[in-house]
Amino acid sequence: METDFVDWLVARIPPDPRLEVPPGDDAAVLRPPAVRRTVVTVDMLTAGVDFILGPDCSPRQVGHKALAVSLSDLAAMGARPEAVVVAVCLPHDAASSLPEGLHEGVAALAAEHGVALAGGDTNAWDGPLVISTTALGSVPPGKAWRRDGARVGDLIVVTGPCGGSLLGRHLRVVPRCREAAEIAARLSVHAAIDISDGLSLDLSRMMTASQTGCLLDLAAVPIHADAVTMSRQQSDGRAPLDHALADGEDFELLLAMPPEDAHRLLADPPAGLTPAVIGAVISEPGLFALDSGGVRRPLPPRGFVHDFGS
Amino acid sequence: METDFVDWLVARIPPDPRLEVPPGDDAAVLRPPAVRRTVVTVDMLTAGVDFILGPDCSPRQVGHKALAVSLSDLAAMGARPEAVVVAVCLPHDAASSLPEGLHEGVAALAAEHGVALAGGDTNAWDGPLVISTTALGSVPPGKAWRRDGARVGDLIVVTGPCGGSLLGRHLRVVPRCREAAEIAARLSVHAAIDISDGLSLDLSRMMTASQTGCLLDLAAVPIHADAVTMSRQQSDGRAPLDHALADGEDFELLLAMPPEDAHRLLADPPAGLTPAVIGAVISEPGLFALDSGGVRRPLPPRGFVHDFGS
Repeated sequence: METDFVDWLVARIPPDPRLEVPPGDDAAVLRPPAVRRTVVTVDMLTAGVDFILGPDCSPRQVGHKALAVSLSDLAAMGARPEAVVVAVCLPHDAASSLPEGLHEGVAALAAEHGVALAGGDTNAWDGPLVISTTALGSVPPGKAWRRDGARVGDLIVVTGPCGGSLLGRHLRVVPRCREAAEIAARLSVHAAIDISDGLSLDLSRMMTASQTGCLLDLAAVPIHADAVTMSRQQSDGRAPLDHALADGEDFELLLAMPPEDAHRLLADPPAGLTPAVIGAVISEPGLFALDSGGVRRPLPPRGFVHDFGS
Repeated sequence: METDFVDWLVARIPPDPRLEVPPGDDAAVLRPPAVRRTVVTVDMLTAGVDFILGPDCSPRQVGHKALAVSLSDLAAMGARPEAVVVAVCLPHDAASSLPEGLHEGVAALAAEHGVALAGGDTNAWDGPLVISTTALGSVPPGKAWRRDGARVGDLIVVTGPCGGSLLGRHLRVVPRCREAAEIAARLSVHAAIDISDGLSLDLSRMMTASQTGCLLDLAAVPIHADAVTMSRQQSDGRAPLDHALADGEDFELLLAMPPEDAHRLLADPPAGLTPAVIGAVISEPGLFALDSGGVRRPLPPRGFVHDFGS
C-alpha cells in the first residue's frame, strides 16, 4: 500500500536543518545558503542500460550509483552538494523488495557527502526499474566551473586513471565532490567536466563548448588496472589506452587549468587523488595527438552515446 | 546521435535571467530569489500507467502533463514556480519522433507560468517512455502551505469540481499556481494539498498529517460534468459523487482555512476559479459524512494507490 510505504520511507529520512518543510508534503522546502547560487542537475538510470540487477549488482548499489552520478555533476561544477530528490518506478514483481536497498544506497552516500534527502516520488509498473535523481548544490556567484571556459595555453588535468569501469567500478562511483571543493578553494580552474561517457568524448565536449582544441599526450593518460584486465580478456582486441579514452563511467574530472595551477595540483593533490596532466589547450578545434613520428594527428572522440535512431 | 539531439534541444531553450549558467553544462546554475526558501518536488510519469500514447494522447500532451503535475505540487505549497529540469527515457523505436512534442508541451506550459527550463537528461532504451520532472519554486520563509497545519474549526475548500478526469482532463492539467499566489497574497491558509490521487484520499492525508478529521458535506462536493458522463456510461455502476471523491487527477487544491477567509475566498475568488466549502475540520481523526438521517458515518478514503505488492 502506497501510503504505508511512503510513511516507511519518510520515517527513515534523517532530519536536516536545511529543510524547513521535510519530505512527506507536496514538496520539500529548503533554506538555501545565503549569497550562493543554486546548482541543479538530473540523471535517469534504467535497468538493462545503466545496471543489470543480479548477483553483481544489488539494489543498494543502484541507489548508490544513482546519487553518485548526480553528485559527480555537482563536483564538475565546483559546487557543494546540498540536497537530493529521488523518483523511482518499481517493477510490480519486485516492488516490495527493492525500496529498502535503493534507499540504503542513496542514504549512505548522502550522509557521506552531507546531502539532505528532500523527498521523492515512488511509482510501480510492469516495466524495469527506473530511478531518477535530481541533486541540488550551491556555489558562490560567478564561481561555477563551466565547460566553456578553457583557454588556449591551459593544461588539461584528469583527476585519476580511466578505463575498464564495466568490470564493476561503474557501480562503485566515487563522486569527486570533496576533492573539487579543495581544488576550488586554492587553485584556479577555467573549465571542468566529469567523465561519464568517455575521456575523449567528454574532453571534446569541453573543447567544443570553449571553442578550443586539445593536443593530447597519449603517453600521459593514466590507465586504470581494470582497462589492462579488460584488454587481456579473450576477444577484447582493444588496447588499454583505448579503454581509457573511450569506456566512460570513470567519473573522474577533466579540468582546464592555468599551467602553474595544474602543476601545483600535481605537486600537492587532495588526499587520495592522483591527478595527471594529459594535454594542452590549443586554438585549433578538435582533439589531436602526436604519433610516434612526432606528427600531429586528429584523434576522433569516442565514448558512449545513446542511440536515438535516425 | 546524442550530442546533436542535445544541441537541438538546448538551442530551443529560451534564455532566462535567473540562469547564471544555462542548460548544456554538467548542471545549471540558478540565481535564487533573495530571502525566499527553495521549494522542490519531483514526479515521474510512465507510459501505460499515467498516459497511453496514441490518437487521444500526443507527446505534447505528455510533456504538458509532466510539468503540470509538478507545478500543481508547487501550487499546493503556495509556492511561486521558478525552474524545472526534465529527465526522459525514450523508447528506441520512437526516440527520434517523441522529443519535439515532449519539449513543446513542457516549454509552452513553462512559458505560461514563467518557469525557466534549467536542463535535463535524455536517455534511450527498449522500454516505454518515462519522463521525470523536478520543479523548483520559491516561497517566503515560514509561508509554505504545509499539509499538517489544519486546525479544528477550519473549513475545507476545494478549488473546483472533481471526478471523471480520465475522460481527458487528466492530460489537460491546469496547475493552480496563479490562483494559489493570489490566495496566498490576501487570505490565510492553514494547510493545503493538491488532488492527485482522489479527493477523499488526499483529504485524509491532510487530516492524518494534521492529526485532525473532517466532517464532509457531501451535497456540497462540486461534481464535474465528466463525472456525470462517466457515471452514465454503460456498466459504470458508480454515482457521480463517487467519481468526484475517488477518481483523482483533478489537480484542484484542498485548502484548510479559517472560516472568515474561506467565506472571503468564495465571495471573491480568483478569476476562473469556482471554489466550494465541502466540510469542516474536527478533532476526531478520520473522514465522516452525515447520512440522510443526519447521523455521522465514517467515510473510507478512496483513490489511486500504486500496487507495491505485499
